[in-house]
Amino acid sequence: MNEPLAPPGPPAAVHPCSLSLTALERAALKHQRPCCIWLTGLSGAGKSTLANLLELRLNGRGLHTFVLDGDNVRGGLCRDLGMDAEARKENTRRLAEVARLMVEAGLIVIVCAITPFRAERAAARALFAEGEFLEVYVSTSFAACARRDPKGLYRAASEGRIRDFTGLDSPYEAPLDPDCEIDTETLGPGCATDRLMALLLNK
Amino acid sequence: MNEPLAPPGPPAAVHPCSLSLTALERAALKHQRPCCIWLTGLSGAGKSTLANLLELRLNGRGLHTFVLDGDNVRGGLCRDLGMDAEARKENTRRLAEVARLMVEAGLIVIVCAITPFRAERAAARALFAEGEFLEVYVSTSFAACARRDPKGLYRAASEGRIRDFTGLDSPYEAPLDPDCEIDTETLGPGCATDRLMALLLNK
Repeated sequence: MNEPLAPPGPPAAVHPCSLSLTALERAALKHQRPCCIWLTGLSGAGKSTLANLLELRLNGRGLHTFVLDGDNVRGGLCRDLGMDAEARKENTRRLAEVARLMVEAGLIVIVCAITPFRAERAAARALFAEGEFLEVYVSTSFAACARRDPKGLYRAASEGRIRDFTGLDSPYEAPLDPDCEIDTETLGPGCATDRLMALLLNK
Repeated sequence: MNEPLAPPGPPAAVHPCSLSLTALERAALKHQRPCCIWLTGLSGAGKSTLANLLELRLNGRGLHTFVLDGDNVRGGLCRDLGMDAEARKENTRRLAEVARLMVEAGLIVIVCAITPFRAERAAARALFAEGEFLEVYVSTSFAACARRDPKGLYRAASEGRIRDFTGLDSPYEAPLDPDCEIDTETLGPGCATDRLMALLLNK
């Protein structure tokens, strides 16, 4: 772990590769296997709630985590992006790239973002090694999400104040083979978190 | 740390804020104070070498780190960006935003990127709390960097094959008040890393 002694005079040529700490060594310090848990589903399905509960549970076990929320990065990393199809795709790409960097840093990263298209989720998965990316489909129905409407978005969309709203005038492509499916209308938050913990411990 | 018990039936309205883990709690698990160490300087000044040595040293002390290298993110997060002034500014903005997220995750983040303009470094610093951002000026001279030329870029620039090359036909604005200055021509890598460790332990 110690760097070579300083040579007398100017340092030798730059060889960063041989000196670099690996993702494995960063994770070893944390006694965990880093991974990305990707929560996809309609707006209001319960993704952020689940992500936060899961993070609390993992943290309670001494595991090192981070939650990347699709909405939250819009105020920072993705503040230059609009809401059209191209921009939403770029938003997902950046989320996935940051999640990958954080997995490289040794963290368990929980991403919550609607990510309605199979292709964008596949592109995210492609950045990770086999078994490092877990797709969780939060499958709460459109009707249930519209009833909850925690941000008033369903009402705004139904009144035509928001366009390209997922599930209404923009499609949601349900995962064909998710690692886990959770319908928060039939499964309470505690049980849903149990199921996610079991998923993580099995993998 | 435990989440509330699942209510019978459908979960209550979404209240992610009150459930969220804070940056402080994420850092507490790691027994460290997260921060961003930003290494700025000419190409070939020794930024990546120093970053890697510093990370090894910190890791050896059980601290949780990550190195964000300006060149490395160009193959991922910033692969959509070119090399013109606007794109280089956006590259720095994204680096700073990712560093901020990683500090929120509790990590000690070492950024190495030429970042030649005072305004872009000031914008990066503005994302962090007081004392959370340390600017390290790797002040190795143009002559020394051109002599080393580890990537052959100085030669390419002098032959006109690269334009807007920092220090040649694009300016480098030296920091006016860096938290630390290191000239790798007069200070060997071991001593330079000692100085950075001292800086971190003092802060």
